[in-house]
Amino acid sequence: MPQASLDRHSPFPPEAPTRADAKAMDANDPLGRARDHFLLPAGLVYLDGNSLGPLPRLAPNRIFEAMRQEWGEDLIAGWTKHGWMQLPLTLGDKIGRLIGAPEGTVAACDTTSLNLYKLLATSLAERPKRRTILSDRGNFPTDLYMADGLFKQLGQGHQLKLFDTVAEIVEAIDDDTVAVMLGHVDYRTGELHDMAAITRAAHAKGALAIWDLAHSAGALPVDLTGCDVDYAVGCGYKYLNGGPGAPAFLYVAKRLQASFRQPLQGWLGHAAPFKFETDFRPAEGMQRAIVSSPSILSLRTLECGVDAMLRWKMEDIRSKSEALTEIFRILIDSVGEKLGLARVSPRDFDKRGSQLSYSHPKGYEIVQALIERRVIGDFRMPDIMRFGFAPLYLRYVDVWDAAANLADVIETRAFEDPKYAVRAAVT
Amino acid sequence: MPQASLDRHSPFPPEAPTRADAKAMDANDPLGRARDHFLLPAGLVYLDGNSLGPLPRLAPNRIFEAMRQEWGEDLIAGWTKHGWMQLPLTLGDKIGRLIGAPEGTVAACDTTSLNLYKLLATSLAERPKRRTILSDRGNFPTDLYMADGLFKQLGQGHQLKLFDTVAEIVEAIDDDTVAVMLGHVDYRTGELHDMAAITRAAHAKGALAIWDLAHSAGALPVDLTGCDVDYAVGCGYKYLNGGPGAPAFLYVAKRLQASFRQPLQGWLGHAAPFKFETDFRPAEGMQRAIVSSPSILSLRTLECGVDAMLRWKMEDIRSKSEALTEIFRILIDSVGEKLGLARVSPRDFDKRGSQLSYSHPKGYEIVQALIERRVIGDFRMPDIMRFGFAPLYLRYVDVWDAAANLADVIETRAFEDPKYAVRAAVT
Repeated sequence: MPQASLDRHSPFPPEAPTRADAKAMDANDPLGRARDHFLLPAGLVYLDGNSLGPLPRLAPNRIFEAMRQEWGEDLIAGWTKHGWMQLPLTLGDKIGRLIGAPEGTVAACDTTSLNLYKLLATSLAERPKRRTILSDRGNFPTDLYMADGLFKQLGQGHQLKLFDTVAEIVEAIDDDTVAVMLGHVDYRTGELHDMAAITRAAHAKGALAIWDLAHSAGALPVDLTGCDVDYAVGCGYKYLNGGPGAPAFLYVAKRLQASFRQPLQGWLGHAAPFKFETDFRPAEGMQRAIVSSPSILSLRTLECGVDAMLRWKMEDIRSKSEALTEIFRILIDSVGEKLGLARVSPRDFDKRGSQLSYSHPKGYEIVQALIERRVIGDFRMPDIMRFGFAPLYLRYVDVWDAAANLADVIETRAFEDPKYAVRAAVT
Repeated sequence: MPQASLDRHSPFPPEAPTRADAKAMDANDPLGRARDHFLLPAGLVYLDGNSLGPLPRLAPNRIFEAMRQEWGEDLIAGWTKHGWMQLPLTLGDKIGRLIGAPEGTVAACDTTSLNLYKLLATSLAERPKRRTILSDRGNFPTDLYMADGLFKQLGQGHQLKLFDTVAEIVEAIDDDTVAVMLGHVDYRTGELHDMAAITRAAHAKGALAIWDLAHSAGALPVDLTGCDVDYAVGCGYKYLNGGPGAPAFLYVAKRLQASFRQPLQGWLGHAAPFKFETDFRPAEGMQRAIVSSPSILSLRTLECGVDAMLRWKMEDIRSKSEALTEIFRILIDSVGEKLGLARVSPRDFDKRGSQLSYSHPKGYEIVQALIERRVIGDFRMPDIMRFGFAPLYLRYVDVWDAAANLADVIETRAFEDPKYAVRAAVT
């Protein structure tokens, strides 16, 4: 079923932006051609790039060739001939350009959770007399689980203290705080946290700041250097468009690299892996964050996503993100009360990531009805509808259509069709 | 440079197998058509599949399609529509068929080193009063490094005790032994360890047995169930032909799954990941070994390698492996003394994996000279030349040619060309 064509019978009040307005914005969009770098299904409005980014146009051929040539023809020689061994760091440097991280501070490897584990472990070693890590209750659960797993494993009395608001966290930082661990953008609400201020507050009490960039890297300018961040992790398969389960990345500030110690000490984090020594000696720099042979095909795929992004200016990406979310917000705010939609995301665009979330008691069913109309958002328990706005491939008109269909699905009670109530495993 | 054609002027004594003998064996090889399932460069004799297996013929198109269809068209819906979320366990079950592991005991995920870390951690929890893990000095270093990393991290006095021989290890098992941790096939010498006897010896003293199948899974029959093994890990990119840095796997015996605890507790190891609960509750079965979103394209690639292998009987694979290594051994033994080649691998084929290693003071240069003749083996410090024999794609004639070129390179002192002495990073 295609999107309902709601141009003539707009569900929005006359003063709201029209579909024609949206089309005019597309005509003037400096990122208008970026969409050509992705392969998107026809007729789909994809507002879930904050969960799984779409396929970069060059990726299938690039990977086909990497398989046939790099692997198939060159086999074991690929490790040196094609820079496979260095790929976690060369790709890490490219990702660094998106997040304000200098060369030699980012490695692309493993998963966000595993990379966070490495950073949590080194944080405890950096602050051996302190016992608490502070986070918010709404942090993405895997971050909390990884900290919990580490603390239980160590049995040294470390504690994860969770708060409802960032203000409470900042208030609670004290001389027992190892680190503040936060998502840069809240995965449910889209709230953008003040990286500079919170990092400063942590440092003022001698604590470290660990940022999870899963919902900000590739979506908005991140300035790890300017904010003097200690550690960060991020995800490869959301705004970086690296494919399902793509490798993640981690950042360690230069000033913390010499003392960076992580317990997952595999042979490729060794100073001389091919000497096959019995004892472990950590490599210099970010190489010591690497555990095992790099996952070449996955890293090459992620590289396609990162390369597609590096063609554009992050400032333009952010400007468009703000404009895209503003149109959606204005449209939905104009009918939200009537439709029982409560905005969960901040009103001000400079307080948001590239996402808007709304709660509705029938959120699950509404998201399913929208999916059938080929408007893809997602649902997060208990009642949150999440819409991500990735500026590289979304058009203003897509956003207008998405908002109109959201309003229409509720207004016409299309979501009440019983088929939408059947719950599948949600991702 | 092609291989030297040494048919007419065989470097071997008259009683040794001839190239014609080898050709006759190829004509009668029940695995003869298995080679068609791989794409190998023309004229190459690839004896390094124990380091990086070759490209399965179906893989490039399969991955191209997975990218275009599963990811590109279905996007986020792929997680349910294409079984992505279950892929670590469904592929794990396929791998299980190669290693004598029942359904629900193997997960394909992360890397060998990381999976070993999970198993070491749960081993310590299973034997909380014991403090030592026994291994051999020649174990692949990453296994030793991971144990060392864990022990240092815990600071509870755990110790890795290393021995020169398996007999010494068995002798040393006592009531302080948490586990014996061994490679099933020694990566340098190719020695095949007696999994059943060593596991039994460990159990007799209340210790656990952790096996690393990196050099046996896919190369020979492994019977984890029959040997009553507790835990195992293995590699996806060697004999399973999963591509450079492919995902690895781990095995947990059914009887140990209820108490299996691992500190890398990410959200996909949670009993209900999409409830986004604040507290971690481990999933049932092997799902609790999973940390993060599965790396779909890598797993799909590994699946191509495993599928290609499952078409054939492991008994036939082993028989051919024994025959391939025997021809090579007999040929090289016939001239070895004269050429200064010392066999490092056991003489008896039932004591070996699918590999033969020889030491020579100029081993590095000889391997380089062979590579130039398109016979690919590898070199391991300080003086070991390693040749792997993967029965699915190697022909008997390939092995004859490899042996003849090895003999010829030494006899003619071709390896003395100074260009071969330039050392690159070796893999």
